[in-house]
Amino acid sequence: MKSAMNVVKVVGVLGLVLASGAAFGQIAKNVAGKSPWGPADEIGTLNMMTDASRLEVLKQVASGKVYDLGVDLFVGMPTCCAPFGDPTFQIWMTHIPAQDPAKELLSYSGDAVSMYTHTGTHLDTLNHFGLNGKIWNQVSASDALKVRGWTKSGADKYPPIVARGVLIDVARYKNVAYLPTSYAITVSDLREALKQQGTTLRPGDVVMTRTGVMTLWPDASKYRLADQPGLSLEAAQGLVEGQRAMLVGADNFGVENFPSKDPENFVPVHTYLLAERGVSLLEALWLEDLAKDQVYEFLFIGSALKLRGATGSPLRPIAIPINRK
Amino acid sequence: MKSAMNVVKVVGVLGLVLASGAAFGQIAKNVAGKSPWGPADEIGTLNMMTDASRLEVLKQVASGKVYDLGVDLFVGMPTCCAPFGDPTFQIWMTHIPAQDPAKELLSYSGDAVSMYTHTGTHLDTLNHFGLNGKIWNQVSASDALKVRGWTKSGADKYPPIVARGVLIDVARYKNVAYLPTSYAITVSDLREALKQQGTTLRPGDVVMTRTGVMTLWPDASKYRLADQPGLSLEAAQGLVEGQRAMLVGADNFGVENFPSKDPENFVPVHTYLLAERGVSLLEALWLEDLAKDQVYEFLFIGSALKLRGATGSPLRPIAIPINRK
Amino acid sequence: MKSAMNVVKVVGVLGLVLASGAAFGQIAKNVAGKSPWGPADEIGTLNMMTDASRLEVLKQVASGKVYDLGVDLFVGMPTCCAPFGDPTFQIWMTHIPAQDPAKELLSYSGDAVSMYTHTGTHLDTLNHFGLNGKIWNQVSASDALKVRGWTKSGADKYPPIVARGVLIDVARYKNVAYLPTSYAITVSDLREALKQQGTTLRPGDVVMTRTGVMTLWPDASKYRLADQPGLSLEAAQGLVEGQRAMLVGADNFGVENFPSKDPENFVPVHTYLLAERGVSLLEALWLEDLAKDQVYEFLFIGSALKLRGATGSPLRPIAIPINRK
Amino acid sequence: MKSAMNVVKVVGVLGLVLASGAAFGQIAKNVAGKSPWGPADEIGTLNMMTDASRLEVLKQVASGKVYDLGVDLFVGMPTCCAPFGDPTFQIWMTHIPAQDPAKELLSYSGDAVSMYTHTGTHLDTLNHFGLNGKIWNQVSASDALKVRGWTKSGADKYPPIVARGVLIDVARYKNVAYLPTSYAITVSDLREALKQQGTTLRPGDVVMTRTGVMTLWPDASKYRLADQPGLSLEAAQGLVEGQRAMLVGADNFGVENFPSKDPENFVPVHTYLLAERGVSLLEALWLEDLAKDQVYEFLFIGSALKLRGATGSPLRPIAIPINRK
Repeated sequence: MKSAMNVVKVVGVLGLVLASGAAFGQIAKNVAGKSPWGPADEIGTLNMMTDASRLEVLKQVASGKVYDLGVDLFVGMPTCCAPFGDPTFQIWMTHIPAQDPAKELLSYSGDAVSMYTHTGTHLDTLNHFGLNGKIWNQVSASDALKVRGWTKSGADKYPPIVARGVLIDVARYKNVAYLPTSYAITVSDLREALKQQGTTLRPGDVVMTRTGVMTLWPDASKYRLADQPGLSLEAAQGLVEGQRAMLVGADNFGVENFPSKDPENFVPVHTYLLAERGVSLLEALWLEDLAKDQVYEFLFIGSALKLRGATGSPLRPIAIPINRK
Repeated sequence: MKSAMNVVKVVGVLGLVLASGAAFGQIAKNVAGKSPWGPADEIGTLNMMTDASRLEVLKQVASGKVYDLGVDLFVGMPTCCAPFGDPTFQIWMTHIPAQDPAKELLSYSGDAVSMYTHTGTHLDTLNHFGLNGKIWNQVSASDALKVRGWTKSGADKYPPIVARGVLIDVARYKNVAYLPTSYAITVSDLREALKQQGTTLRPGDVVMTRTGVMTLWPDASKYRLADQPGLSLEAAQGLVEGQRAMLVGADNFGVENFPSKDPENFVPVHTYLLAERGVSLLEALWLEDLAKDQVYEFLFIGSALKLRGATGSPLRPIAIPINRK
Repeated sequence: MKSAMNVVKVVGVLGLVLASGAAFGQIAKNVAGKSPWGPADEIGTLNMMTDASRLEVLKQVASGKVYDLGVDLFVGMPTCCAPFGDPTFQIWMTHIPAQDPAKELLSYSGDAVSMYTHTGTHLDTLNHFGLNGKIWNQVSASDALKVRGWTKSGADKYPPIVARGVLIDVARYKNVAYLPTSYAITVSDLREALKQQGTTLRPGDVVMTRTGVMTLWPDASKYRLADQPGLSLEAAQGLVEGQRAMLVGADNFGVENFPSKDPENFVPVHTYLLAERGVSLLEALWLEDLAKDQVYEFLFIGSALKLRGATGSPLRPIAIPINRK
Repeated sequence: MKSAMNVVKVVGVLGLVLASGAAFGQIAKNVAGKSPWGPADEIGTLNMMTDASRLEVLKQVASGKVYDLGVDLFVGMPTCCAPFGDPTFQIWMTHIPAQDPAKELLSYSGDAVSMYTHTGTHLDTLNHFGLNGKIWNQVSASDALKVRGWTKSGADKYPPIVARGVLIDVARYKNVAYLPTSYAITVSDLREALKQQGTTLRPGDVVMTRTGVMTLWPDASKYRLADQPGLSLEAAQGLVEGQRAMLVGADNFGVENFPSKDPENFVPVHTYLLAERGVSLLEALWLEDLAKDQVYEFLFIGSALKLRGATGSPLRPIAIPINRK
């Protein structure tokens, strides 16, 4: 296997590769991948990030305008996974000021939260989905899964992410407010949307596709995992194998489209990206402001909470426009 | 009162002002402040941040090295507030792969968390402490506190923070691993530590003091709110009134020293900063790496989770060295 | 107002009173009631219970067969109140044995739960619903509601309940598996069902009506608060004012039928019973076994967890057949 | 192995058997027991309970006075297991009436709780501790432990308990408010305390020993698992093998004394009772009222919440005096 580290240096053939799903050469194999970064690797393609890669994009910053890519977290918000038994988002008060403020100087308020780690805008870490008992880098659950989380590939192992980010506005390309229910974004959709935007992908990019479903947020009856549009497996393969994306994100709940057609696997793009390719995911991103301003290339900064052992973490990434070159 | 917006442009008199606590002129008044940014203001001094201020510091970036200022969150971690009845940090599995992986293709793991919002490295928002029933900008609890949180000054109202950050390494100045139990950092300590570092504060800075107690982390019997060293009220006043700090942070649990000597107020620096001055806090910051590398000036980036109505939020800020000028 | 203590001694006129809703004389008044048991009363009609009343029914026990009136609590179970933002039932492991049991002698398992207090079979305490800011016995929220619960009428104030219990099987009387969606049980329904059963009510009884909806349990899409059949206000009035029921229960989620026709009050039977009359409720009771065996009169024993300040508590009551006399 | 069912019928030799620990014949063997009630058994000695056994004790009831054996659950209460990472007890409001009650008819309050299942007065089920990977009846964790709990011996499988209960007031026998720190109750202590009380044990009894530590409740600094007095292994063996106790309970947090002297097993009495003998435990019982009134024999009624798969459950048992015969 050619080292991904070398591949990082290979640029410019993207249009070609994206021309055909078949060019990716391989179908997902349903086997957890072995990391080209060695047996100790827990973060997969995030190894593509270096001081040099970070400095390069930081130096391109063209504005002090900050785009907020995170959504609010609140009681009653849409939840991907309550149908699977996961808890809904909860916040509650643990300290409140006295009813009669005249009686106390100090007005003390405190609160607590509970949530599924995949709540609101969030990162999926590589231990979220494995294949046949093994996650990325062939780590088995029997070795690395404990009662309070994984000892491998948890959110605590993730570095802050500082990288070039790219938005692919598929909804705009399709000229719709949001893609149809369950629509599977194709390789051609990505290629044509990029062409329309005049955007070129580069190895190491954080690539985010916009389906437009965030325009339905926060109506939990409409913004729901069950039938959202999203990336097809072929499109995901194009981004990763063709374009060497470092991280794949979207404005929907699961990056990919639902429901899956594979009766054995309800999340084939997740297992392909996380388990086979070591590519982490960003989900439920707020891309509306970037889309409105047609900002397609930017400095992406996001850092997951270091929830030890966790399979994901809510986070609030930001985007800052860069000079296009 | 002179507009803080104008003050942002005033630089260079800091050494002078820090020369004497008396120069700050005012003692904390125990009255919730009225915002110079108008009646709708909910974020206080964070209004000092502008596209221009952000671009200025972004342009100074000198490295692609990223310093992670957040701590791990894990079961058994030190907690400020369990003695006040607040919940400890909890994480648990909601999905795990089958015991016999041969029986299923998909190895699905998921988890959930619960925590006090002031857990690990975190932001204190302006609604966390008020005075006599009112928080910053004279908002009363009876108007703005609901069962699931505040409608004013919650973490959801906070912008991502992109600003110049400064570390004041008081422990290094004092030549100790960590400041003594309950030690109250003085105006002189800050002034001399800054002088030793060759660092100058500027209006709008995120100012972080290092007490060294994070070297005791994560031993919960040693890293504990009850008797930690921290800022004296006078030192906090110097930073805010003298130096126009935008945000005040520290590596201890409560920024200030504990216990308070004021029998009526166990957190006089909190009420001064949050309620009187509209200055938010950053607590339990991991400053060890910056200190070791003697990085005192940097681009600070941090964004709280938008927990609607919350009095604080865990976050994981980063620091990137900038050119000193 | 005639003292309820006297009324306890009045028996035998029940058939008559139940003959007409009009006989109850009063319409719910939407004013929190003042307790005939004095200003310190927090438990309302549970004061009807005495050593003598308990011994009387204990002495009637006719069998050692115990009927379990509680349902299982599990992830994914039907929940009354998730649509109102309340948390779903959660249970999770906090300790599990080693993956390789050969490595440790001790196989230690532990777990934790979280839930809305009105989960599964449960008691509603008198502070659950008040009117115009006051709960039973004219206690105001401003005096008695604190951040972690009520200081009055919480589940911790409730005595264990040991009393005569009566099942009114309305579904059987109507000859249906379960009453129609939103059906409001009438005074006549109760009277005729009792007549068919040959059962007579007595003051101080725990009266439970069976709608049959528990036959839909645990299908959360079918067993749901929104449109369940239940007691009409008139029928509730008949039980309390006519029959001097001590406690009113049912196999549905809210005792009464939903939705309410009153646009100002979505739970008119709750406010009537809890706030006006001091009658606590039992909800989501498992009455199927009693119904199948046609056991209509029994020793009822149930004790809420003493959750301090709580508005309700899950509990698992039992019924033991008594001699009918 | 002689059937325990037969043993139930053997009475009267108790004084003899209790005369010597050696008479019990066997030392704990550290092997999960095989149930005499067959391979499907999940509740162990609770199988001793029958309609006949229940009716017998119900018929002995001598009073309508009810003793409440449960403690309050509240924020800040003593907790056995927070030092092991388990969550503390939490309760919080999810609905509260409006600040201005004049604005709304309905004053709606709701709340939620979270807790370790072994909180307050509680039952330990047989899956709580196993030996070498197997719980009672040789069920292995690999077969029966799932992400949300055990499929065997969970609290949901437990019947309501209606049985003869006996209090052994060891603190009274020793003439102390509470037994000394870490004191291990001996076989002789039990025998002499029973003699002093004039109480005889019978097969199938719920036997509760009083150490007196509940007089320290709810001071969490004094009522704590770490060094409480409790049953020695020999005393536990005497109760179970000699006396055929059905259930063993106490007023301390762990029935047995702490710390254990066995470096391999910090809970030797738990593993003996739960894993080897199929005897469930009752912990943190409130026995003060029974002790004060010198009520040593009673009808015991307690029913765990049917928390599916749980290793324990809070419960609130009651005791009603019976005729001694």
